[in-house]
Amino acid sequence: MNAKLITAPVVALDVMSGDGGPAVAIAAADIAAERYPRLSFLLFGKEAVIAAELAKHPRLAARSKVFHTDDVVLMTDKPSQALRRSRTSSMGMAIGAVKSGEAHAAVSAGNTGALMAMALFALRTMPGIDRPALAALLPTLKNDSVVLDLGANTECDADNLVQFAVMGAAFARTVLGLERPRVALLNIGEEEMKGTEEIKEAAAMLRGADLPMQFEGFVEGDKIGQGDVDVVVTDGFSGNIALKTAEGTSRLVIGLLANAFRSSWLTQLGYLLSRGALRALRAHLDPNAHNGAVFLGLNGLVVKSHGSANERGIANAIGVAHDLIVDSVGTRISHDMASFKAHRPADAPAA
Amino acid sequence: MNAKLITAPVVALDVMSGDGGPAVAIAAADIAAERYPRLSFLLFGKEAVIAAELAKHPRLAARSKVFHTDDVVLMTDKPSQALRRSRTSSMGMAIGAVKSGEAHAAVSAGNTGALMAMALFALRTMPGIDRPALAALLPTLKNDSVVLDLGANTECDADNLVQFAVMGAAFARTVLGLERPRVALLNIGEEEMKGTEEIKEAAAMLRGADLPMQFEGFVEGDKIGQGDVDVVVTDGFSGNIALKTAEGTSRLVIGLLANAFRSSWLTQLGYLLSRGALRALRAHLDPNAHNGAVFLGLNGLVVKSHGSANERGIANAIGVAHDLIVDSVGTRISHDMASFKAHRPADAPAA
Repeated sequence: MNAKLITAPVVALDVMSGDGGPAVAIAAADIAAERYPRLSFLLFGKEAVIAAELAKHPRLAARSKVFHTDDVVLMTDKPSQALRRSRTSSMGMAIGAVKSGEAHAAVSAGNTGALMAMALFALRTMPGIDRPALAALLPTLKNDSVVLDLGANTECDADNLVQFAVMGAAFARTVLGLERPRVALLNIGEEEMKGTEEIKEAAAMLRGADLPMQFEGFVEGDKIGQGDVDVVVTDGFSGNIALKTAEGTSRLVIGLLANAFRSSWLTQLGYLLSRGALRALRAHLDPNAHNGAVFLGLNGLVVKSHGSANERGIANAIGVAHDLIVDSVGTRISHDMASFKAHRPADAPAA
Repeated sequence: MNAKLITAPVVALDVMSGDGGPAVAIAAADIAAERYPRLSFLLFGKEAVIAAELAKHPRLAARSKVFHTDDVVLMTDKPSQALRRSRTSSMGMAIGAVKSGEAHAAVSAGNTGALMAMALFALRTMPGIDRPALAALLPTLKNDSVVLDLGANTECDADNLVQFAVMGAAFARTVLGLERPRVALLNIGEEEMKGTEEIKEAAAMLRGADLPMQFEGFVEGDKIGQGDVDVVVTDGFSGNIALKTAEGTSRLVIGLLANAFRSSWLTQLGYLLSRGALRALRAHLDPNAHNGAVFLGLNGLVVKSHGSANERGIANAIGVAHDLIVDSVGTRISHDMASFKAHRPADAPAA
């Protein structure tokens, strides 16, 4: 593998993004600066606001350059509207810094559709990759699992799914530290005959491939939470439905639990005694702990934070960017795609 | 509406189906017989085994006719294998009794694919319905919601989705007792521009339609658990992924909760004090409480119970069959489809 070792990673941060605004984004960058002593920042947004926040964080200030702009992409902007402001908005300028090579990754907590459109337009897909995919970590009973695509592509063909599998495995090797991640395609049954033609064809291609992963065939939605596979591959529609349904169900069960504890003085006492353990449960499921979805497959790294993330959440998203830079995930993906192409069966049967 | 009032409903029960076997199925039928004094049963399976179980349940025995067969569809049988045994298997014979008019609904806890194939082959779709859909109830923070299709159709066009919406609304009116259910299409965003062409087209058709429902546009996966809509409409692939992911996440959170309570003697004491409330929480989420998925859109009712359902679970599935019979859900669907066709906009824009 022909990786350039990056020892002084630089992150371009869209300071104006996220529900918490610049105060939260800057505080998050400061947490990340403490965690990663070699990491430095390019900060994009309103200079006066950034300066006021940086004054509170001298450690971060010493490792940051500020780039002023008044233009901010709103959560309500359509991707087409945002694209026109690629050079003027804090989001667009952060991506531009990755394109020009000044930064190794861009991080934003802003409008997902706009971020995706700008990132794709500016950075283009890597050789061998037809479409980028949005990947993130989901909590399970065991270790976290990678799920992709989470919404970048509404419809996917077999080649797209195979590329997602390669990218997801590379991501898992970096972020989960696994040598040979277990990879499966999300499906409505585990038998070979189940699912769409695209999925069956992708499975046939992955079964025959010589890749640094353990291909496990199909997995159903109820198995994601068990953590029996490390990478769950699906199209962006189903992936988004699965991710959101999992988040919603988590909230539902925790909401019902809160009601249950409120039901009598006895259960309230029970709650007081169990509080510490319940806090640990909530922490395990907290989206902030798993924050940082990555657009994989572009010529440059772009990390999306939850809009509602807190300081720790955005710091985790910056941490994901840091790890992917240092581990040269892009080089891993190119390498695996090249090796896969070389070994691709001439006529993979649509099993 | 031209409904024949059915005052003496008859359910055809596939006694040999389900993980619990005939003992659980017969005990379940007895619970249902107690709940619904006018309900009677046709029982299909091994006569000797059924007779032995019926001896324990004289109330049920007095209201049952037994039809002997040795042939049982296995969970591992492919739909094509099962289809060949439509006349000889307990599952096929139960469906046959609906076709011949001897029973008003068939209930089975067996192989879903086989049940669907046999039901479609024997009963055919209703006029105006191109494909049947599998519908079931999901627990939410408020009332239960209907979700369909849960896996009968891997891919769907706009017409299918519109028909599912009509059928799901009719189902909600019967099972949830709502006059004007709120109906939404499952999507990856709530904005009109989001999603596949099929979904956008279905939304345009439903927006203009004069139907006994409140069409709410799009809903995302994380909103299912909130219970803000009564009917969630989607294709069988996404619906199955959403249902299974919700089940898996429920189990994940409850598993983590059990671990949390086990972590110290203090939390164990907390658990003891909160036990009653936690039992209520588990009951709210218990699949047995929501058991009974229905194949809608056929010329006859077929209800699928969870294979792992207990006596109470299968009794609930029989209860769903009972309510749908008494409420003439089939007539409701025909009526609504006919009225929808009459009002269908000549050229619905693909918004």
